[in-house]
Amino acid sequence: MKNYIQENKKRFIDELIELLKIPSISADSNYSEQTFKTAEEVKNSLIAAGADNAEVCQTAGYPIVYADKIIDANLPTVLVYGHYDVQPADPINLWDSPPFEPVIKATELHPEGAIFARGACDDKGQMYMHVKAFETMIQTNSLPCNVKFMIEGEEEVGSENLGTFVKNNKEKLKADVILISDTGIIANDVPSITTGLRGLSYLEVEVTGPNRDLHSGLYGGTVANPINVLSKMIASLTDENNHITIPGFYDKVEELSATERAEMAKAPISDETYINSLDIAAVEGEKGYSSLERVSIRPTLDVNGIWGGYTGEGAKTVLPSKAYAKISMRLVPHQISDEITELFSKHFESIAPKSVKVKVTPHHGGTPYVTPIDFAGYKAAKSAMAETFGIDPIPVRSGGSIPIVALFEEELGLKSVLMGFGLDSDAIHSPNEHYGIFNYIKGIETIPLFYKYFTEEFKN
Amino acid sequence: MKNYIQENKKRFIDELIELLKIPSISADSNYSEQTFKTAEEVKNSLIAAGADNAEVCQTAGYPIVYADKIIDANLPTVLVYGHYDVQPADPINLWDSPPFEPVIKATELHPEGAIFARGACDDKGQMYMHVKAFETMIQTNSLPCNVKFMIEGEEEVGSENLGTFVKNNKEKLKADVILISDTGIIANDVPSITTGLRGLSYLEVEVTGPNRDLHSGLYGGTVANPINVLSKMIASLTDENNHITIPGFYDKVEELSATERAEMAKAPISDETYINSLDIAAVEGEKGYSSLERVSIRPTLDVNGIWGGYTGEGAKTVLPSKAYAKISMRLVPHQISDEITELFSKHFESIAPKSVKVKVTPHHGGTPYVTPIDFAGYKAAKSAMAETFGIDPIPVRSGGSIPIVALFEEELGLKSVLMGFGLDSDAIHSPNEHYGIFNYIKGIETIPLFYKYFTEEFKN
Repeated sequence: MKNYIQENKKRFIDELIELLKIPSISADSNYSEQTFKTAEEVKNSLIAAGADNAEVCQTAGYPIVYADKIIDANLPTVLVYGHYDVQPADPINLWDSPPFEPVIKATELHPEGAIFARGACDDKGQMYMHVKAFETMIQTNSLPCNVKFMIEGEEEVGSENLGTFVKNNKEKLKADVILISDTGIIANDVPSITTGLRGLSYLEVEVTGPNRDLHSGLYGGTVANPINVLSKMIASLTDENNHITIPGFYDKVEELSATERAEMAKAPISDETYINSLDIAAVEGEKGYSSLERVSIRPTLDVNGIWGGYTGEGAKTVLPSKAYAKISMRLVPHQISDEITELFSKHFESIAPKSVKVKVTPHHGGTPYVTPIDFAGYKAAKSAMAETFGIDPIPVRSGGSIPIVALFEEELGLKSVLMGFGLDSDAIHSPNEHYGIFNYIKGIETIPLFYKYFTEEFKN
Repeated sequence: MKNYIQENKKRFIDELIELLKIPSISADSNYSEQTFKTAEEVKNSLIAAGADNAEVCQTAGYPIVYADKIIDANLPTVLVYGHYDVQPADPINLWDSPPFEPVIKATELHPEGAIFARGACDDKGQMYMHVKAFETMIQTNSLPCNVKFMIEGEEEVGSENLGTFVKNNKEKLKADVILISDTGIIANDVPSITTGLRGLSYLEVEVTGPNRDLHSGLYGGTVANPINVLSKMIASLTDENNHITIPGFYDKVEELSATERAEMAKAPISDETYINSLDIAAVEGEKGYSSLERVSIRPTLDVNGIWGGYTGEGAKTVLPSKAYAKISMRLVPHQISDEITELFSKHFESIAPKSVKVKVTPHHGGTPYVTPIDFAGYKAAKSAMAETFGIDPIPVRSGGSIPIVALFEEELGLKSVLMGFGLDSDAIHSPNEHYGIFNYIKGIETIPLFYKYFTEEFKN
């Protein structure tokens, strides 16, 4: 099997590069056509790899690609989830090479080279590892169980139509475990498996002052400026200790035991890791918690975007009519996305001064999730990684969110295994996103072993 | 003379409309060619009106149009200042008709109709009144004194090159008074003359957190978010009473006497004026001062623009590398623009947390100005307006800034008369800027009377 992968390594890379050339940006309707096209390409790649059935299932939004290979009803079934849509590429000017013209370059962390392109890691690269691992098992007659694929195109915009699809296709999606590669490892020599994910509540706010843009000289001083007001409102959402001030926000937050926090502290991640790699003088976050805790077991509030008034070249003395911000909160176990969205909206409206009007629009959310480390899926992933990396993977809580994991458990009663191969330095959601050739191939080598060990675990 | 104006009214309007079709946006280099072209058009219009000498004087930026008509060295000379550049037109989508395709529409305040276009009032419309008033005096053999014109193209971006031009052309610009129409009147039946102008300090700030955009899930909580930080910094610039917190900011502010404030209170402007016309529930401003005082005799701080992170369609969970804001402060007599800019920069840098880097870039400034109401120029303007409006004009302090007025006094030793004919409702610097036909023609009728009365005052 290893030989097959080595012999076809170049083709595996070239095929991924072709897929990366299609700008499947789900957040921007200007790329709608290309996003639909990507679904077709993914379907074709699954058929070529050896799937019996493969179809592009239409939804109210972008379609979900389904495919399967059932070899024996008595054998376990692995359901692979991934997504073919990608984040917007802006700010474009900060990319060293065009985001949809993939190039391979060697970096300090990737001496073997890494593929630079939007989606290289998140999630086209990691999703396509499964397609090639599947092909490898078929070609080497080593597929040990049944496999199903569910690849969606709206993960970056909240998987709005996935829920309906899952609810309506429970029989079709019947399986024994869900396998997802949309997370990362600590380092190429420090493998890890994500056992926890933060949830998400994402909203857009609009603050309206006067009914039209005004001359700041003629009105400034007595007519509330929506940008000044929005700044004060945002500033008041966190206190001097970087605690979030929304009433009730922390009520359901899971507090970890001293033992668990001590365990976490063992991970080789220090403040210097951030300070040096990000060129900052200091980290900053919630008082009383370590950097690793702040990005994993603690909820946060970030403004993801803000705009209002004149943002062009030069100076314009305008007192704008409106100011906007996109604000998201990362949630931890037991916090419920809809409740937090509700708490935020109520609070934000309540702190608005009489001089402005406020509109809050929820975008999307996701429930936090924790994987038990004692079930067959986790054990299989651990054995598989231990074999290919030559060292046991560490279980870690990730700060990111994969909202649908909680949905799968709820609707299909299935646990998910988050066996990802990316690195924090891959710059997903940023300019110059890339994915190491090492990681891509290591994933293709590890996935078949997961199937093997899961099938064994399952028999016991 | 009145007949000549009536007979040529339609042509006067058509000529202005042609001038308004050229997008002379000095803040946006994309319109550079049209801005230069506008200077040529203005020069040609002055020659056509009867100027002896007219030239386009090149500067390091956009040129200054100079023209004159010297009839007798023993007679006084009026130096007319105006500007042919205009504000950017965005947000374009809020215009009811294209900003550079002028249309005439009747409004509640302008039953005779108003010209809708960027620059209709500020300042092409008001500047062109002087060209047509000059033509009228020439054609009716009633020019009572010498006249010089200085029309610049960088007023909306801080008149950066006007200072040098004035310093280098003191002889050429020799005059007895400066006449400017770049301000307004309280209402078409309540004429007023601006006796005070606020100064300006305008800066752009850049807050940098991490050296690249990050995934807010993986880093949010421990890496300072430049938008959150910028919001807190902006929020801290004013306290709960809307006092500006920059140390030393108020040190030189001129405090008006109770008598002067009582005088001001007589102007027919109430909070309801703002509340009703701007569709706001309440005004908001510095504690202890009336709305009129807040926009005239008190300094202010407004964020004119803010941007950072993802501002496109949909949701992007990014923790951005940078956040920006354009911030301006309106200054009152005795505050010095450069000093305030310095105080702001020092303070803003001092309040930045260690987790970010801050860059402050001054854009442009302007010194506050007050016109004495007992000199020949003011008296002449008062008599002229009293005659055409049939009621004495009220002296008012304006919140706007015309930075160059202080420059003229310093370099040329000349007082300026701010005899403008616009209305606050003309929406200058906003979508749907317009200028009333009534105001345009009233200006053309009033200006020759200013020349007449100023010449008489001068003889005494």
